[in-house]
Amino acid sequence: MTTAIPPYPCQDSAAPVDWANLPIAPLDQALGEALMARWDQKTKPPGSLGQLERLACQIAQVQGRLAPEDLRPQALIFAGDHGAAAEPGLSAYPQAVTAQMVANFLQGGAAISVLCAERQVPLWVIDAGVAADLPPHPQLIQAKVAWGTQNYRQGPAMTQAQCQAALARGAQVVRQAAQQGANCLVLGEMGIGNSASAALMAHYLTGLPLAALVGPGTGLKGQALADKCRRLEAKAASTGPIDGPLAVLAEVGGFELVMLTGAILAAASARLLVLVDGYMVTAAALAAVKMRSQALGYCVFCHASQEPGHGAVLAHLGVRPLLDLQLRLGEGTGALLALPLAQSALALLSSMASFEHAGVSRAI
Amino acid sequence: MTTAIPPYPCQDSAAPVDWANLPIAPLDQALGEALMARWDQKTKPPGSLGQLERLACQIAQVQGRLAPEDLRPQALIFAGDHGAAAEPGLSAYPQAVTAQMVANFLQGGAAISVLCAERQVPLWVIDAGVAADLPPHPQLIQAKVAWGTQNYRQGPAMTQAQCQAALARGAQVVRQAAQQGANCLVLGEMGIGNSASAALMAHYLTGLPLAALVGPGTGLKGQALADKCRRLEAKAASTGPIDGPLAVLAEVGGFELVMLTGAILAAASARLLVLVDGYMVTAAALAAVKMRSQALGYCVFCHASQEPGHGAVLAHLGVRPLLDLQLRLGEGTGALLALPLAQSALALLSSMASFEHAGVSRAI
Repeated sequence: MTTAIPPYPCQDSAAPVDWANLPIAPLDQALGEALMARWDQKTKPPGSLGQLERLACQIAQVQGRLAPEDLRPQALIFAGDHGAAAEPGLSAYPQAVTAQMVANFLQGGAAISVLCAERQVPLWVIDAGVAADLPPHPQLIQAKVAWGTQNYRQGPAMTQAQCQAALARGAQVVRQAAQQGANCLVLGEMGIGNSASAALMAHYLTGLPLAALVGPGTGLKGQALADKCRRLEAKAASTGPIDGPLAVLAEVGGFELVMLTGAILAAASARLLVLVDGYMVTAAALAAVKMRSQALGYCVFCHASQEPGHGAVLAHLGVRPLLDLQLRLGEGTGALLALPLAQSALALLSSMASFEHAGVSRAI
Repeated sequence: MTTAIPPYPCQDSAAPVDWANLPIAPLDQALGEALMARWDQKTKPPGSLGQLERLACQIAQVQGRLAPEDLRPQALIFAGDHGAAAEPGLSAYPQAVTAQMVANFLQGGAAISVLCAERQVPLWVIDAGVAADLPPHPQLIQAKVAWGTQNYRQGPAMTQAQCQAALARGAQVVRQAAQQGANCLVLGEMGIGNSASAALMAHYLTGLPLAALVGPGTGLKGQALADKCRRLEAKAASTGPIDGPLAVLAEVGGFELVMLTGAILAAASARLLVLVDGYMVTAAALAAVKMRSQALGYCVFCHASQEPGHGAVLAHLGVRPLLDLQLRLGEGTGALLALPLAQSALALLSSMASFEHAGVSRAI
């Protein structure tokens, strides 16, 4: 795949996006009601397909069609490094693993690579800000803003210009996927230290205490986990509350997380379905929703992560995820695993017989 | 598909199965430990694929292979009528719907038909005891024991001979599926009134109160639901406790439920994976486990039904289902929806790279 995205370092020529005025259509409630009525004609007790009925309606509303098109998914995995993770203590794994895992994604050995191959979903990996030079690869989009963020324990993670560049590049990747035919994005991430960044983003954006938002990430336990929480609380104490999602993203975001926020906003604007993975993508979606509340309707929250803060953020957003498989891997794996459910929901809506057509009696 | 199963009415020539001595191998614990160690070589934090790791191990143990084969699924939907449902009050739908839905399964309009077509899973419908003559169809196995059970409110639902015939025919269908190459069964059912039968089976087999086991089925509410519970409590009071699963099955079972019990035991004996659907198939699995405890290891409980008794029976069995999508349809739909998860678990186990092979650093 060739790409129109400029090579790193940050040299954006595109005009900055006016996020506050990006057109995002609210979901059509009348269409949703018409679809629920269509479900009730199907040969089954009313409501008996549970969450799948609402999911199919949501997909149809996202597309703005009474007869939704089949999903044409594209997996986008954004990778970036975190200055705060260059020192030990924020993750069970060394920072070098971010770049190593990007190579693993591209070589087909990572969980998301295996799942994409199994379900025949094209996979692009986006270098949002990995702290290494990555060799070119047909599935690698080079969109690096910088070689990792600054350490947010010593100041903002990025400048506002870098934050805007990351948002715009996330949107650009989505436009490219849409141009190539995708109508459904499977969003994932990779970045050693990014569960800490997600926890801070969630804290600033929701006001929830960090103790409810900080978790083991790739596997911190006991004292190491307590230390992670203490460090993040010290950061939060040093700034006090931060007003506005753009300021929050620049203060503690990762380039991969900010690009995800831009990608979600652009997907909503283009009426693409967004399959949201676990804690980190949900934190990016939270920022998107705080910027433009209509973006929420375009998001399907695919699974409940084992990361304890995920449930708190999902509850804040008022959403119920599709799967709860005790996953805590990221990479978009939970989103990919939910894709067959979305496909099945659409198949059922389009192909099940009506009571009348099948000659089946209704309830007494 | 041609079938060696005798036509109805019940004319079994095969020798009765000695269920107490049916060979069912316990799952190999050493194999399970070797597989968990294999997972921990994969490029991901230990345990981060959650329930999928245990699921892949279980499938490998079912097959008795360190490198499990891909799943070759076969859907088996057992249908039967219930004498107790010939009178109003036990279901929101008239009894005729059982036969109408069998026709809908075979015509491709039912939810399970759509899902099987979507996932390319062959579907057989088994007439276990529908209260109507069903026209021949290539996907219909005629194994009818009788034109519906007797009304258990007036005595046993079936004779012990009919119960044995149903068990044996369930096993025979499974042998046929295995001969045609299946190594994984998607089990479902159809039978107006069978949530009442399942509740009674669960009550007699677990000792749990009917108030915890009786639910709306296809949609009873308020007084109608209270009446259903009262009728079933009167039945239970009239017999007192019943000793032994065979006696319970004959007293309150449905032919489709008893055939499912036989199918599950035969599948375990033949080392086939059993994807268990909702409340009714779980009640049949409960009976199978009470007959032969080793059968439990061959069962994957695929979803948590909205039927309130399902959670109680799953807890009694000590199992956690894969999905919770608020389904309450039956037909094997919840089992079919979980099939892609089982396939993905195997793909991940077989195809993910190891840390060593991918050159990814381990935890610090």
